[in-house]
Amino acid sequence: MEEALVLGIDLGGTNTVFALVNKAGKIVWESVFPTTNYSDFQDLSADIFKACKNQQSVDFKQIQAIGIGAPNGNYYSGCIEFAPNLPWGDKIEVVNIMQGHFQLPSFITNDANAAAIGEKVFGHAQNMKEFGVITLGTGLGSGIVVHGKVLYGYRGFGGEFGHIVVENQGRFCGCGNEGCLETYVSATGIKNTAIELMATSKDASILRNEKYISGKTIQEAALKGDALALQCFEITAKYLGKALAVYSSIFDPEAIFLFGGLSLAGDLLLNPTRKYMEENLLAFHKGKIKLMQSALDNNTAAILGASALAWDELSS
Amino acid sequence: MEEALVLGIDLGGTNTVFALVNKAGKIVWESVFPTTNYSDFQDLSADIFKACKNQQSVDFKQIQAIGIGAPNGNYYSGCIEFAPNLPWGDKIEVVNIMQGHFQLPSFITNDANAAAIGEKVFGHAQNMKEFGVITLGTGLGSGIVVHGKVLYGYRGFGGEFGHIVVENQGRFCGCGNEGCLETYVSATGIKNTAIELMATSKDASILRNEKYISGKTIQEAALKGDALALQCFEITAKYLGKALAVYSSIFDPEAIFLFGGLSLAGDLLLNPTRKYMEENLLAFHKGKIKLMQSALDNNTAAILGASALAWDELSS
Repeated sequence: MEEALVLGIDLGGTNTVFALVNKAGKIVWESVFPTTNYSDFQDLSADIFKACKNQQSVDFKQIQAIGIGAPNGNYYSGCIEFAPNLPWGDKIEVVNIMQGHFQLPSFITNDANAAAIGEKVFGHAQNMKEFGVITLGTGLGSGIVVHGKVLYGYRGFGGEFGHIVVENQGRFCGCGNEGCLETYVSATGIKNTAIELMATSKDASILRNEKYISGKTIQEAALKGDALALQCFEITAKYLGKALAVYSSIFDPEAIFLFGGLSLAGDLLLNPTRKYMEENLLAFHKGKIKLMQSALDNNTAAILGASALAWDELSS
Repeated sequence: MEEALVLGIDLGGTNTVFALVNKAGKIVWESVFPTTNYSDFQDLSADIFKACKNQQSVDFKQIQAIGIGAPNGNYYSGCIEFAPNLPWGDKIEVVNIMQGHFQLPSFITNDANAAAIGEKVFGHAQNMKEFGVITLGTGLGSGIVVHGKVLYGYRGFGGEFGHIVVENQGRFCGCGNEGCLETYVSATGIKNTAIELMATSKDASILRNEKYISGKTIQEAALKGDALALQCFEITAKYLGKALAVYSSIFDPEAIFLFGGLSLAGDLLLNPTRKYMEENLLAFHKGKIKLMQSALDNNTAAILGASALAWDELSS
């Protein structure tokens, strides 16, 4: 019998990457279309279908299911709802449209939930039923697994840990509130921390010579021992560590994984975060909760997460 | 066939109430022993067994299972672990001991989780799979239901919402941290708010004539229109409402129920809490999440919650 495969689709504001992935997480064929070339999802999905039909790498019949990771992807409705970076209207019937082309079971979720499912199917969480993945990109996303299943809540909007309030009257957040975790702990957050520190101190820093400040330039400066950049990581870690202690009191997880751009700083972020988390954990949690970097490679994680969603559904 | 019953046990620091309860939540027989009379749980459980054997109201064989609600009751281990108000050691093997006497399936959980299961089996949450119960007593407890099951986490300590931090450098909490929700939103919390307001203002208040300030006296004063007492509820509601907005972004619940002493204030607490919750909800949650008082009577809720645990297990 030919090997079973799933189609994983990472639908992003700029590009839509799609791949055929086996049960071990190996990408056996991959392609990409620029999302911005399409005036609606119907046309994009038709081209994805054609590309999958026309590829010569595997037999089309090997494809068993489709998993889609997309901003604001709602697992329950099968739609992308109110995604600010996609110009196709308030509600895009992604699952129905894909099923129309492929006649295969199709599932959608948002990026952070896909990352969590990717960790569960292909990563460090393969035997875990209670864990969380915190994705540190432009914002802070989270995929939370409870009882072995993603926490979607009643309407599919659950699992948002980025909007817990960590500072009353704190930084303005895109959500309309103030002091949300993601305004401090994200690429945007650490950049604003660096700018604040430069504006309010006279300390020398190689960041002062940078044309553009970003999570990446702060990380590079910190690795060179730049005190101000290191302070940025310390402040970020303090907010994150305290928040993860709160996360732990709510979820009592087996492990928490950090994923995405800022998490690539590795121990630079992990070590102080772990320190602040431990300091703030309830007594019976101290020393018990694993905090580690995601096992998934940042470059392929999105497509693996989308594929993992399909594999997870096939196996449940 | 005779009606099936369960034995529900509400094990408290002062009294242990136990009752035989039918599937509709009717208490058909009830008794109580002073917890403080017993030097270990073995003796107390033997007396409970004897009392159940000797009662003449129903046939002993009608009892199908046992549910126990207790402070620090751990569902997974079947033990009471490190309960500060019980003098029987760090780990009490409650489930094993009860099963030894009764030869019946036995289950334990903590008070707040029992309240949530009570709401699910006998109260307003009978058809809900995603909801939370916030218990407002001396402290703030919470029972959180996800995927139709209580969120116990990996080690059975999950579901603690009272220790999210709502004020950096805020009030000291028994857990060792500062600014935890329960230091503001609980009978103790509102009492401290009243004391703070009296100490820092010159406003007249009938509370200034009270010998003892408590959640109950503040409520009574507020109902008489006392401005300072009303301000106490406003402040409490602001912390609670903002916290429930955070709860909603994490869990996307169908409903949140308030239970316990302070919740008996009814609309005095519910209305301003709802206002602050709505103000702070993420846009797509606004107007969608039910906030209401528990359906369970405060006097029988603990025993009904314990019984509900047994019924819930029998039906799953």
